[in-house]
Amino acid sequence: MAEILNFSETGRVTRDALSDLQTHFSADLALVETQISTHMASAAQLIPEIGAHIIGAGGKRLRPLLTLSAASLSGYRGSDHVTLAAAVEYMHTATLLHDDVVDDSDMRRGQPTARKIWGNQASVLVGDFLLGQAFRMMVAARSLEALDILSGAAAIIAEGEVMQLAALQSTHMSEDHYLRIIDAKTAALFSAAAEVGGVIAEAPEREIEALKSYGRNLGIAFQLIDDALDYGGVGQVLGKNTGEDFREGKLTLPVILAFHRSDEEDRQFWQQALQAAQSGAADEAQHDANFTQALSHMDKTSALADTIARAAHYGEKAKDSLGLFPHSQTRDLLKQLVDFCISRAY
Amino acid sequence: MAEILNFSETGRVTRDALSDLQTHFSADLALVETQISTHMASAAQLIPEIGAHIIGAGGKRLRPLLTLSAASLSGYRGSDHVTLAAAVEYMHTATLLHDDVVDDSDMRRGQPTARKIWGNQASVLVGDFLLGQAFRMMVAARSLEALDILSGAAAIIAEGEVMQLAALQSTHMSEDHYLRIIDAKTAALFSAAAEVGGVIAEAPEREIEALKSYGRNLGIAFQLIDDALDYGGVGQVLGKNTGEDFREGKLTLPVILAFHRSDEEDRQFWQQALQAAQSGAADEAQHDANFTQALSHMDKTSALADTIARAAHYGEKAKDSLGLFPHSQTRDLLKQLVDFCISRAY
Repeated sequence: MAEILNFSETGRVTRDALSDLQTHFSADLALVETQISTHMASAAQLIPEIGAHIIGAGGKRLRPLLTLSAASLSGYRGSDHVTLAAAVEYMHTATLLHDDVVDDSDMRRGQPTARKIWGNQASVLVGDFLLGQAFRMMVAARSLEALDILSGAAAIIAEGEVMQLAALQSTHMSEDHYLRIIDAKTAALFSAAAEVGGVIAEAPEREIEALKSYGRNLGIAFQLIDDALDYGGVGQVLGKNTGEDFREGKLTLPVILAFHRSDEEDRQFWQQALQAAQSGAADEAQHDANFTQALSHMDKTSALADTIARAAHYGEKAKDSLGLFPHSQTRDLLKQLVDFCISRAY
Repeated sequence: MAEILNFSETGRVTRDALSDLQTHFSADLALVETQISTHMASAAQLIPEIGAHIIGAGGKRLRPLLTLSAASLSGYRGSDHVTLAAAVEYMHTATLLHDDVVDDSDMRRGQPTARKIWGNQASVLVGDFLLGQAFRMMVAARSLEALDILSGAAAIIAEGEVMQLAALQSTHMSEDHYLRIIDAKTAALFSAAAEVGGVIAEAPEREIEALKSYGRNLGIAFQLIDDALDYGGVGQVLGKNTGEDFREGKLTLPVILAFHRSDEEDRQFWQQALQAAQSGAADEAQHDANFTQALSHMDKTSALADTIARAAHYGEKAKDSLGLFPHSQTRDLLKQLVDFCISRAY
């Protein structure tokens, strides 16, 4: 994987910390990959087929890396962290499959979604299968505490998605309300992934709290950066991975900030544009015109730059939460991972 | 609940054994109901709303009753059977919500489905929430073995649904292939529900095997009777709860038997009628004409009577599997439950 050079906010050049983390845990990650493919086997042909499409080799494995890193920070010596890491990736993948159905998404990260290729029905069912397999893997790790944390996260993620669905029409949503949604739908799994690494290591309560806090704050930062990147980040650099949120009429922090900073006329634009996107009423030309106008509103209101500033705030909290762990390469990499996540949006 | 009198195949008049079982376990069932409503609480308003619609008071609680009965047969003295029974009902309800999305169903048992009222999106997400909560409840029961059995069932159910989806176009499906599908999508949860009752009681292996076998065979019988009832049972008595499978173009055992016993001309009718139903191509008049013709084919081929005869075969296996338990009221009720399930189709 090519190394990407970035300037972190401290002015240091940071390498692609995600690649570094993947390299650092490459032996464990290889075991995670084995578990991921083993549990995809099924007499129902569609399952490995869709599985290969959505969870096959090439994923970033960010959430499993949190479990592996947390276990390492807490001095874990067993092998159950690998099983839990694979289970976490299965949970994540199940939510992706269901999200694409719920959002009617045709594209994810520039690729056609599983539901676009195989249909909604298969996406729902294979998502259910992955969730079932995730729990089987967790059970195999034999930690009731880890099971409790991850099953709790599964319910909270779904709750967050329901909250987002219910709020689809509320263009006036407050930033706080939006944060509650992403805390549930995104940060809960980051937090649980890190927490269980400490739990199976039987780390002291304060360390487990620190790992939870790192995961949660990184998760919020990650989601906000993702929100900003969908509008091309601070430089508004558009490509095949941008514009998906706007096409679906999704309320994300850049929209919420732009809306709150707008006058009555601009707010009417937002309301109409989001509604048109949600209902699929706008044709391509109208959609493109709306998107151009949305970008100009975001520029005028500094909505993207400030979304990234908000993300950086949570990123700082994530880094500080690791303060009570002694110095180690893993700790350094986890801190650099935060900077790297934020830097993606510049 | 009104008592329904039925003649079992032994010639004895059997009362509504399901009601009797509900009465026998009424104290435990009340605790199950409390757990069911407690775990539906959520900040996301839609969750308790949809929950009340689909899992609210009035359900038969057949699967939870299997857990309660199995625990009782095995002499269990604790309270975790109640928690597991509630978890089983949550799992069942989650699959109902997702099935209705997958099957595009507007009606279930004569009532509008949740997806018809609240949409596919909410049905998928609330299903996910219920599945997450089910696992939380199982964790609360603190039995890794029960967790393993139920999470395994969750994956197998989804696998069965995927198999059914993949086989939608194969009108020539063999009876054996169909049995593998319903073994996974229906019988696996019946079997797991009964098995975990024995597991938490730490019953000897042979008793646990017997409970599994009872649940599995009852599940297969139950599904086959359900299939026959959708065409009005042996008397072809139609009502607001009939015709849903045919409307969705579902391949069930009555269709498979009728198809295999047909000549070339009749087979063409089945293929065209099922395809029209699956694609939604037939208008109401055409659909009604097709349904009438389907019923006449079933009559001519004895497809319904023989579906019920097949069900009775599995029912007998279910009853015999209880032979190694000493005589008790619960054992009698479980045997009568089998007869009652079969008798519904007469």
